[in-house]
Amino acid sequence: MNFASDNVYGVHQQILDALSKANAATAPSYGGDDLTKKSEEKLAEVFGCDLRAFLVTTGTAANGLSLSAITPGYGAIICHGEAHIAVDECNSPEHFTGGAKIIGLHAPGGKITPSMVEKTLKGFIRGEHDPKPKGVSLTNATEIGTVYTPDEVKAMSGLIRPRGMKLHMDGARFANAVAGLGVTPGELTWKSGVDVLSFGATKNGAMMLEAVVFFDLALAEDFAYRRMRSGQLISKSRYLGAQMLAYLDNGLWLDNARRANALAQKLATGLRQINAIRIPNPVQANEVFAIIPRSLNDRLLASGAKFYDWMPDSLGGGIGEDEIFVRFVLSFATPEADVENFLKLIANG
Amino acid sequence: MNFASDNVYGVHQQILDALSKANAATAPSYGGDDLTKKSEEKLAEVFGCDLRAFLVTTGTAANGLSLSAITPGYGAIICHGEAHIAVDECNSPEHFTGGAKIIGLHAPGGKITPSMVEKTLKGFIRGEHDPKPKGVSLTNATEIGTVYTPDEVKAMSGLIRPRGMKLHMDGARFANAVAGLGVTPGELTWKSGVDVLSFGATKNGAMMLEAVVFFDLALAEDFAYRRMRSGQLISKSRYLGAQMLAYLDNGLWLDNARRANALAQKLATGLRQINAIRIPNPVQANEVFAIIPRSLNDRLLASGAKFYDWMPDSLGGGIGEDEIFVRFVLSFATPEADVENFLKLIANG
Amino acid sequence: MNFASDNVYGVHQQILDALSKANAATAPSYGGDDLTKKSEEKLAEVFGCDLRAFLVTTGTAANGLSLSAITPGYGAIICHGEAHIAVDECNSPEHFTGGAKIIGLHAPGGKITPSMVEKTLKGFIRGEHDPKPKGVSLTNATEIGTVYTPDEVKAMSGLIRPRGMKLHMDGARFANAVAGLGVTPGELTWKSGVDVLSFGATKNGAMMLEAVVFFDLALAEDFAYRRMRSGQLISKSRYLGAQMLAYLDNGLWLDNARRANALAQKLATGLRQINAIRIPNPVQANEVFAIIPRSLNDRLLASGAKFYDWMPDSLGGGIGEDEIFVRFVLSFATPEADVENFLKLIANG
Amino acid sequence: MNFASDNVYGVHQQILDALSKANAATAPSYGGDDLTKKSEEKLAEVFGCDLRAFLVTTGTAANGLSLSAITPGYGAIICHGEAHIAVDECNSPEHFTGGAKIIGLHAPGGKITPSMVEKTLKGFIRGEHDPKPKGVSLTNATEIGTVYTPDEVKAMSGLIRPRGMKLHMDGARFANAVAGLGVTPGELTWKSGVDVLSFGATKNGAMMLEAVVFFDLALAEDFAYRRMRSGQLISKSRYLGAQMLAYLDNGLWLDNARRANALAQKLATGLRQINAIRIPNPVQANEVFAIIPRSLNDRLLASGAKFYDWMPDSLGGGIGEDEIFVRFVLSFATPEADVENFLKLIANG
Repeated sequence: MNFASDNVYGVHQQILDALSKANAATAPSYGGDDLTKKSEEKLAEVFGCDLRAFLVTTGTAANGLSLSAITPGYGAIICHGEAHIAVDECNSPEHFTGGAKIIGLHAPGGKITPSMVEKTLKGFIRGEHDPKPKGVSLTNATEIGTVYTPDEVKAMSGLIRPRGMKLHMDGARFANAVAGLGVTPGELTWKSGVDVLSFGATKNGAMMLEAVVFFDLALAEDFAYRRMRSGQLISKSRYLGAQMLAYLDNGLWLDNARRANALAQKLATGLRQINAIRIPNPVQANEVFAIIPRSLNDRLLASGAKFYDWMPDSLGGGIGEDEIFVRFVLSFATPEADVENFLKLIANG
Repeated sequence: MNFASDNVYGVHQQILDALSKANAATAPSYGGDDLTKKSEEKLAEVFGCDLRAFLVTTGTAANGLSLSAITPGYGAIICHGEAHIAVDECNSPEHFTGGAKIIGLHAPGGKITPSMVEKTLKGFIRGEHDPKPKGVSLTNATEIGTVYTPDEVKAMSGLIRPRGMKLHMDGARFANAVAGLGVTPGELTWKSGVDVLSFGATKNGAMMLEAVVFFDLALAEDFAYRRMRSGQLISKSRYLGAQMLAYLDNGLWLDNARRANALAQKLATGLRQINAIRIPNPVQANEVFAIIPRSLNDRLLASGAKFYDWMPDSLGGGIGEDEIFVRFVLSFATPEADVENFLKLIANG
Repeated sequence: MNFASDNVYGVHQQILDALSKANAATAPSYGGDDLTKKSEEKLAEVFGCDLRAFLVTTGTAANGLSLSAITPGYGAIICHGEAHIAVDECNSPEHFTGGAKIIGLHAPGGKITPSMVEKTLKGFIRGEHDPKPKGVSLTNATEIGTVYTPDEVKAMSGLIRPRGMKLHMDGARFANAVAGLGVTPGELTWKSGVDVLSFGATKNGAMMLEAVVFFDLALAEDFAYRRMRSGQLISKSRYLGAQMLAYLDNGLWLDNARRANALAQKLATGLRQINAIRIPNPVQANEVFAIIPRSLNDRLLASGAKFYDWMPDSLGGGIGEDEIFVRFVLSFATPEADVENFLKLIANG
Repeated sequence: MNFASDNVYGVHQQILDALSKANAATAPSYGGDDLTKKSEEKLAEVFGCDLRAFLVTTGTAANGLSLSAITPGYGAIICHGEAHIAVDECNSPEHFTGGAKIIGLHAPGGKITPSMVEKTLKGFIRGEHDPKPKGVSLTNATEIGTVYTPDEVKAMSGLIRPRGMKLHMDGARFANAVAGLGVTPGELTWKSGVDVLSFGATKNGAMMLEAVVFFDLALAEDFAYRRMRSGQLISKSRYLGAQMLAYLDNGLWLDNARRANALAQKLATGLRQINAIRIPNPVQANEVFAIIPRSLNDRLLASGAKFYDWMPDSLGGGIGEDEIFVRFVLSFATPEADVENFLKLIANG
């Protein structure tokens, strides 16, 4: 019973098969191969628009590179205080952007609002003594298992676009957000004003694969240089292209996400029936965050179940001394029986 | 007939199989998995010493990260003028080191000598108006298909170590150098004074895999932070560990290199029998560089054979106007028949 | 009546005279001149210890360069949330350090405590996913006109030194802190565990001059390269050396600071007698922060008096809607009559 | 007799007086003062065009900041191999640009030509594996005492502007070039296609002062942030403005340059009459480079004269084993008698 993260699970069999299939014969290197080219075309089809897509191997690289296209070193990016770019990537955004400031705003539920961003921007009244605000980054699905709706994204874009700022979406769990919302990928991105997306695949069934997807094509100019310079241009690039094509083919990416999301709903539904457990935020993607008794936490861990406790700061209070805030992540590959057995384990405490 | 590069070939079947085998069940992420841990142990066994090894996905990242451990932004790294870090990686070394200067020395045969480096160091007489020399990087096998012997490496180390400088080896084709020289990996590295090695696997049969191997363990302190910050810590790290174990297992890495080297010898032997062709440097690894008539070059390309022409600068003269300098790279996966057919194609011109 | 900042005032006449005096004849450039050398010796005398001092032209450069000596790009520096390095220097600390994270802690009174830092450090439990904590920076006198005592500095050092972290002091108003506390420069720095000090002179009578002073001599290694690379090595360096010698000569620096501090006390004493005005923090250096009625604020500004309002966030509440938080800075050159007239202006409202 | 550099001499009296005059009363800080504003207007008048000017304290900062406005970290700047940005500023250009590559071309006489640059650009055929060429930097007057004419500058601009590259001029000795050529400042810059100029004043009579002057106004956008972030925004900025106004007032800058140039001609004329001495390049500004016998060199140094020997590489041969290549720099403040006495000293050998 492993709910520690979606990245503790392996690679979806169809993607693994695609790697084997891609192995025959020779292919041009450094992105010149057919599979890489087709993956960009396929992404354009999935999003329903003209776009530029660049394949990389990690979400941290996808985020850092994305941000480097929208802010110089003297700029600032505003995001949620628990965003991956703010607290989970060492100083990677600073490294990729050449020193930009990542300004994390604290708010319950994992989501920031235009009014929060507007208030922050109003504080930038001293010209070059402050950094120059260059963008906002929204994580969707959020770090806390909630999602931004297209309307919420649109509202943020409506605030910042007139100010010349760009909108980035960290989509490490983008598939889970799309699946959870029941919208199209286009509705959640370019139709709502997203300029550049970190399109995640690793957590949702790929081996090591993310794409930086530009809807604002001007931002993509020179991006090939940025990727190369950061050591993210893969020589045998066909193995990234193959993963992406298999991931998108026949909607595998959304099938995987729907399955993980459904397991999260199943787990949440079960947990909500336990008196001693509270689920403070809506469960809108593939993660369930719960406040549980410490004694239960200890018992579950002792039984071999795997999951992490979470910073209670994100709760904004409402947790007792004998309670602990924990996270359960569901994956496309999590056995349904594991969820059922886990709920039984809790009930039989 | 594809001699364009070793990275146009695919993944060795044993490595591909290892990926499938690694796919079962869950595993800790971000380097906490058993395969990653075992790969470090296996590298220690192969090199016959205590070491620290960090897996990354590209040679550019391996080089940039290695250099970042030996030079700050105000330092300088001395290397051959045609080294990958000097001319093939956009400004990646500058990016990873925070602005260090890469000083490329020009010399025929792809190799720099201690006396060349010493002369350069003697020019650094103006304190902080120059950068501070912090290291030397040797590419082995070189970009021109030659190799540094352990004695040559030792001589370089003997010059710079007393000056507090560190020795990096770019081993994108390290296996080919070891196989070509018939020495042990340890003899060519730590026993000869190498402090940190970019240990390449991608060109020689892996999918996307290099290791930064520290023999000077002090340099490895904080290196985990450097790798993370550059977006090179893979979440599903088991798939890097699996590649590395398969690559090293039963000496696959050296078998692959020996095969590629043997094909290079076969091709060189054949070419040398053609009157109009000259091979200016010794063929010591898996690359053959030749001066051929332009008419022949055009005919070979027209027939569908793939290979690149090379900067004649590295020749230091000796090439006619109707001649062209070309590179043939042999891979573990190059069909032997391709070499034979290629030689026939030339002979039957 | 100008209380906007200490940097709106000019240069002390003795320092100006020293520049003229330094103008005769030729002198070695780039720090090789006698005045620069003597200024380092004089600083050693003033601090009563062996030290290394490097002259630069701005406090922002002094801070950025100081921090670059104690943290690499993957590190973190902890400071007060209103520290100059956190909110007043664009992204200069990030620029100089190559991307380190500046973590600002919020606390009333402008001062952070060891327990606050300890709590932050306890949150760094995830290895390289967080930056590596490398130092703490204390601003003394603080941005809010308070001071850290030697005991408070010592307590901070006691916490972080065993963890391998370094202690920086931003002393843009160091003279005011020393004068306000009545301690020796050595007691407030190296005797209390400070490793590197930004020793300010500009605000307190110099033209453009700060020194980076290393008490931890190992940190000074290679620092000449850092300064050069940032464009802070002045060719006609004698004009920095001359300023520093005049600033230190016969205790001019402390005389200036004492005068400014005394004016601050005089102003504070006067303000405290006004019913509608509150001074929330102790006045311990040359700045007075007060909560005043908005109507008074408007009247004073309309009368031509110059001063700035301040972020009320630093108050942590306690301010009414019809009130405003304002800052008055006193300089060595502020006419005493200006303080008296200002108080009269308020009283006669 | 000091011919070591123009920066071993002091500050022109009129500039020193201007500093004293600027000292009265209070003034807005951080560039908000009248003197700074007027200096920008005065520069516009001197150059005869709309421009944006930013005052900084060193030539290294002026160059680094200028380059940061024309190249990102993945770009390249082409310049002469002996340019200050290539070999005299530690890794400052790399620091300011975030890692751009400075490509120095070797050529006798200190000057590069469009055909040399074009050949280099033709080598950039591999897309993102090379850096992206973003600009050319011309040093005028050059490091070897020669000058680029407006036509030569125009030819360079004609090559690179259609390619989207920008033209920087390092004018540390710009006044000497203008005076030597007898052209207007506008003719040598924006009328010939210069986009941004490092306008030097320190070597030619100021204390510490350079200006980054943008003729391409779009490049100046956000430049205030760049300057601030690098620690080059001076708080008491009036003292930079005062220097610049005095430097430009009544053509002091050109008078100073003409005097230094005339002394260089006088020295060169005298040296040319000595049989054993050769002056390989035209003397077009305030520097004289000569090949002299080593015995003479030793005798002159022993007599107390100050000057430096120079890298013979820049000669491209033509120097004997018993000869040495030396540099004599003349300043606005060099006593004419020193030149005369120096020539006598040589003649009386």
